[in-house]
Amino acid sequence: MSITRHGIGPIMSQVVEDGGTVYLQGFTADDKNADIKTQTGQVLAKIDKALAVAGSDKSHLLSAQIFVSEIGLRPQLNEVWTAWIDPGNPPTRACVGVQLEGSTKVEIVVVAKKK
Amino acid sequence: MSITRHGIGPIMSQVVEDGGTVYLQGFTADDKNADIKTQTGQVLAKIDKALAVAGSDKSHLLSAQIFVSEIGLRPQLNEVWTAWIDPGNPPTRACVGVQLEGSTKVEIVVVAKKK
Amino acid sequence: MSITRHGIGPIMSQVVEDGGTVYLQGFTADDKNADIKTQTGQVLAKIDKALAVAGSDKSHLLSAQIFVSEIGLRPQLNEVWTAWIDPGNPPTRACVGVQLEGSTKVEIVVVAKKK
Repeated sequence: MSITRHGIGPIMSQVVEDGGTVYLQGFTADDKNADIKTQTGQVLAKIDKALAVAGSDKSHLLSAQIFVSEIGLRPQLNEVWTAWIDPGNPPTRACVGVQLEGSTKVEIVVVAKKK
Repeated sequence: MSITRHGIGPIMSQVVEDGGTVYLQGFTADDKNADIKTQTGQVLAKIDKALAVAGSDKSHLLSAQIFVSEIGLRPQLNEVWTAWIDPGNPPTRACVGVQLEGSTKVEIVVVAKKK
Repeated sequence: MSITRHGIGPIMSQVVEDGGTVYLQGFTADDKNADIKTQTGQVLAKIDKALAVAGSDKSHLLSAQIFVSEIGLRPQLNEVWTAWIDPGNPPTRACVGVQLEGSTKVEIVVVAKKK
């Protein structure tokens, strides 16, 4: 099976398809000064778009890795996350606090399956 | 190939099977006040159980991502880890220090193959 | 499909092949006191070697997870990274700041496809 790449930039591809498996880049919000809930919403909207590019959607998520700039942001992030995921089809998940660039509050990496 | 999810909760699935590949959530210990060796043991016991749910076991691990709350905990973690893994079949691994919730000292994410 | 492991040590395998998918351990530089650009170069050289062991190469990268000891190191890391990747075939990527051991400045984990 061949590899298909979408959104190729100088540093990374936004999306890489390998057979039926879809890898997404770590997405961050455009509005770095927004609060965690707004940033999370922006990130998830980007993920929706990127999944669509590869013929997938959020009901086909396999795993998610969530990086927050402060672990105390997790409850607020979870509010937006829980409203977004397909309730019958959530991915596995890990959420940890790391150092992100500037005032970025959240970065999310997912792996999904094509529809 | 279809996706099979186990332990579906409001935020994540505990285990997701995609064909022969098994993704596990990031597991943490129940006893957050225990020392790193105890916490690691509890996490690995949860991983054993979760792998079994998906028809896998620790000899079929592909990769592991270990998050510790303080990188200096790694030698003690490694004692428990090394005693646990199947000596002929260890996964790839990365272990880094991040911010975890409360007094959680370790969170482990693995990907495995079904037997 | 069976699992093939290379460079089996007491804690991890350096490389694990599962069918056509290749998982690499998190690699760090040998010279921990070198600057970030030197360390990144050493890490990428190890990744080249490890990919070759599994019949893959950098043009077949699927995803990369980069851990730096200080997020401010990212621009310098990117210089070396961008010069190294195959321009038409970059992986997806996330790069976050974490606590690494001693004076280690960068650790990189990749997943690739066999040629």
